[in-house]
Order: sequence, then C-alpha cells, then structure tokens
Amino acid sequence: MDPDTHIPTLHDIRDAAARIAPLAHVTPVLISRSLDALAGCRLHFKCENLQRVGAFKFRGAANAVFALDAAAAARGVVTQSSGNHGAAIALACRLRDIAAHIVVPDDAPQAKVDAMRLHGAQLHRCAPGMAARNAATECVLHEFGGSLIHPFNDARVIAGQGTATLEFLAQAPMLDALIAPVSGGGLLSGTAIAGQSLAAGIEVFGAEPEGAADAHDSLLAGERISGRHAQTICDGLRAELGPLTFAILRERVSAILLASDAEALAAMRLFFERLKLVVEPSAALALAAVLRHKARFAGREVGIILSGGNLDLETLSFARREHSKT
Amino acid sequence: MDPDTHIPTLHDIRDAAARIAPLAHVTPVLISRSLDALAGCRLHFKCENLQRVGAFKFRGAANAVFALDAAAAARGVVTQSSGNHGAAIALACRLRDIAAHIVVPDDAPQAKVDAMRLHGAQLHRCAPGMAARNAATECVLHEFGGSLIHPFNDARVIAGQGTATLEFLAQAPMLDALIAPVSGGGLLSGTAIAGQSLAAGIEVFGAEPEGAADAHDSLLAGERISGRHAQTICDGLRAELGPLTFAILRERVSAILLASDAEALAAMRLFFERLKLVVEPSAALALAAVLRHKARFAGREVGIILSGGNLDLETLSFARREHSKT
Repeated sequence: MDPDTHIPTLHDIRDAAARIAPLAHVTPVLISRSLDALAGCRLHFKCENLQRVGAFKFRGAANAVFALDAAAAARGVVTQSSGNHGAAIALACRLRDIAAHIVVPDDAPQAKVDAMRLHGAQLHRCAPGMAARNAATECVLHEFGGSLIHPFNDARVIAGQGTATLEFLAQAPMLDALIAPVSGGGLLSGTAIAGQSLAAGIEVFGAEPEGAADAHDSLLAGERISGRHAQTICDGLRAELGPLTFAILRERVSAILLASDAEALAAMRLFFERLKLVVEPSAALALAAVLRHKARFAGREVGIILSGGNLDLETLSFARREHSKT
Repeated sequence: MDPDTHIPTLHDIRDAAARIAPLAHVTPVLISRSLDALAGCRLHFKCENLQRVGAFKFRGAANAVFALDAAAAARGVVTQSSGNHGAAIALACRLRDIAAHIVVPDDAPQAKVDAMRLHGAQLHRCAPGMAARNAATECVLHEFGGSLIHPFNDARVIAGQGTATLEFLAQAPMLDALIAPVSGGGLLSGTAIAGQSLAAGIEVFGAEPEGAADAHDSLLAGERISGRHAQTICDGLRAELGPLTFAILRERVSAILLASDAEALAAMRLFFERLKLVVEPSAALALAAVLRHKARFAGREVGIILSGGNLDLETLSFARREHSKT
C-alpha cells in the first residue's frame, strides 16, 4: 500500500480504531438546546478539542506512527505542521520512544509550537507558505532520514482521522448530516468515508474560511487549485488539498460551506458561553458555516466535529474586543 | 419530611436521579495526563460545567421543583441566589411551566443574572450579604406566596446535588478521594452522602477560598460560624453553611482545604489551556486546593467536581493579566 495514493476503506478505519484505542481518548458528544434554537436544527458536537494534544490530529498521527514496522520506526519520523499535527506526531513518537522531526513555519501559533517542544520533538523552522514548507521538509528528510508522515495526504492519517466518526455515529446514530472543517482535507476525507460507509445517505459537508477557499473552489472547478496565499485567523485551515484528499472529497462531499473570520470568532464565543468549551477558531468555523447556511440544515440532526481547542489566550481577547465593537 | 432538617439518604439521591433523568445531562468525566503530572496523583474531573445552565445546581433545582405536588407547584417557587442556583430554578420552573421568583443580590455577576432572565424568572434585587438576602426573601414570600426552595439548606436540593456523585462513581469507580467546592454546602453534602454510601472508605474534602473560610473555621470550631463578610472572586462561594449542611459535613468531611483567589485563577487558566474547558473561578478552586495540598493526594485517584462554567469573559482577561505579571 502506498500511503500517498491508497484511498482508505472502512476496514482501514476500523484497523486504525483498534490500533489507537490504547492511546487516544474516546471524546464526548455534547448538545446545547440554546444553540439548537439558534441554528434551527439539532446539533451534536464531537469534542475532539478534548482529544489528547487538544485536537483530532492525534488520531491520525498515532495511527501512522504505530503502523510503522519496527525497522522504519527506529529511523524516526519527519513531518511538517503549523501546529496540531506537529504536536500530535511529537506525542505519538514520544509514546513509541522514537525521534520526531517537525518542519514548522514561522507563522505558527506559539501555543502550538510550545506543545511540540513539550513532547520532545526536534523543530526545524521555515518561512510560511506551502512551497517553503515542502522544500524544508525535503531538506530534513535528506539530512536525518526517517519516515515522512504527511499531515493529510496520507492514507494512514486519513484512516486515523476517520475513527472520530466511527465513535461519533456510535454515540449519535441519528445523524443525517456531518460537517467538519477542511484545510488539507484529511479530517474531512476520513469523516466522509466513515460516515457514508456506516450511514447510507448521510450528507457530508466541509467548512472553510472565505480567506482560504481553495477546497471550495477546487470542488467547483473540478480540479485541484493550489499556490494561493491563505488569509484567515483560522490558523489550522491554511493548507490546501492534496491529490489524495481531493480525489476523495470530490466523490463524497455535498458542498464546502464558507464562513468569515468574524463569524468564526462569534461562533468561538458561543462555544465559550453556551457550551463552556474552549475551541480554536478553525473548529468554531464549522458552527459558523451551519449558522450562515441554515436552510440546508433546517430540522436535521447535524454532527459537527470540533476539531481542536488550542489557542493563545490573546485570540480569545481579540474575540471579546471584536464583539464589544458590535 | 421537612426539607430544612431531613438528612438525605442514598435512597433519596437515587429517587432524585430517577426524577431528573429526563431533564439533566449525564456529564462526562475527563482526565489530563499533564495535570496528573503536575498534581502527583490521578485526577478525574466530573464536568458539571457542561450541565444544563452550566452548573451542578440544575440537579438540585430540578429535583426540588419536580418533587413539588401539583397544588404547591401551581403557586410557584421562591428562592434567593447570586447566580447558578437562580438560573437553575428559573429553567426548572420553565420546564414545569410555573412561576419562579428569585431574590438576587446587587453583586451577582451579569452573566448569571442574564441566565435567570433568559429562562423567564422574575427577579427581585437586594443588597449583598446574607442578612439582606434573607430579609428580601421573606418579603417576596409574603407578597407572592409559593414554595421556598433554599439554595442549599434543603434535603431535596442536597439529594439532587448528590446525583452528580452517583454518576461519577459509576463512570470512575476507582476513586478513593472526592473534592468539591463548599459555599452553603449543598454540593459537598450530597457528594459526601453519595460517595460514602457507595464507596466505603472514600475520603471527602471541601475546597474553600481563603477569603470565605467559614466552613473551614466552622468544622474546626465544632460550631457554625456565620455573619462574616466574604471576600473572594469566587462568586459562587460567598454563602455560609446552613444548619442542615453543617450537620452533614461535620460528620462526613475529612477536611476543608483552603486556596487563594490567585491560585483559583491560575487553576482556571490550567483548565483553559490543558483541558479546553471553561470553568468559573469557584470550580477551579477545587483543583487549586489539590495543588496546594499535594501531600494529601499523592498517588491517589482523586475525583474533582467541576461545579460550573459561568463567567464573564472579563474574568478570563483578568486571569490573563494576572498571569502576565508573574
């Protein structure tokens, strides 16, 4: 199996679930009647912000790291990440007691960089943007060797991310729509494969920032758009689809729904006040997209994957100031 | 049964659990390996901040309101509260479609007052302090009639609060210590009765702010101290024990552990950053007390009841500023 090109199956996702069961949390599903009233549908939140390292990314990283054979594992792991994937790889490698090399762009949020260091990864800084990240990753691979675990264009990672939806549908079997944020598309791909394999007819949506709408535009155009400059406070959603995730999403996703940064911050505040949850803007964006596109969800049972909860306290203060202006 | 003097039993708590099952959330229990490392024990957090109205108070309020017979219910309910109990009574009364009159001191936090209004209660403002609250409550009872549901010195309320621990011990049966914040003592009383009835030998602790240490001092003195002026940012912990809760706690609690406001804010920040949970200072204080009194808990399985998550965003900014000073 080539992890760059293999499209994971439900079987792969079940294997991943068994592999990571001793490592990952089973995260709770929460509801809020007051948010239901606001959205005009029944919302179910899969709290991956309460996952280890504070993000769903631990699922895919743990699956990929623990799927390596002993010889490959001994040579360590290389990846690139602006945040949660890096922290997740760092923790998974620490749990397996192997080396982790992470290429980190200079615009990564401090809280996320701190988390990678905390778990003992070796960091390699680079300029922002996909081109610089890819070049730096090649350099690190050349220098240190080891297995590349791409943050999203990797069947092992996608299968791991799909385990969140395996759990979700066991916890909330009534769901008829699923929505997850989309950046590189690993989470949304795993969500779509698991969701549609288990619940025929379930509709799957992506949520993407207006300022980083490459997945939205790619699916509309029927070809993968790349090389744009993403401009959004949703720091987890600045990547672009890979060939593998594009191939999966174009077959499976009903629509990519856009929302603005201001809407993401307002949604973040709703999570804070109504659900008592800390979610990062990238995660809040999925609720923002539902609230902007209410007609699609009216009266339905909607599952939202809260992708992560890692943010600098500064960001929340920003949300507060934005709100007081209105 | 006189609710002012009856000491609830495990049987009462089980009745309460059955009564509120259609109304209340079963809240999740979360763990954090990084907080375990900090505390030197294994911590289990019962997330009553994720309960309806954002606090355990909904359990006791729902039990008391739904335990009223039809004739009493029709005359409505009167209570006094600086926050979460009032919001909980307001919601419980709305669900039963009866009137709620709530006496609210002028120093109650805005977010909590808003929640009472949101659920349709009639508010009656009074000066801060127990004497003014009690006097105003008498006036309201005289004017409007209805059943008084005291926020803590009430067997129905205590039994309701105890249902959190019924759930907790089913979710985390290995616990050998329980800690809950103490204000009027309703939560801690219910916690102690449920905990010790179900798990022989489990040790029960209260957590109290240094600036509102009446329960601590009362248990040491062997008599109920009252009439002090509480000074703490933990707005949910400014009440003092009642005769009923004092009688229960003196028999059942190993110690009341103190912590400072600064320690509560630092703990609030840990919940935000490590557990991705919004908890109010009154709830964070329980973790603060464990961290200050580590020796008592070393190596143990410690259950902490996160009592609530209702705070103005300003409070969090305050915690941020405090932190940046250090």
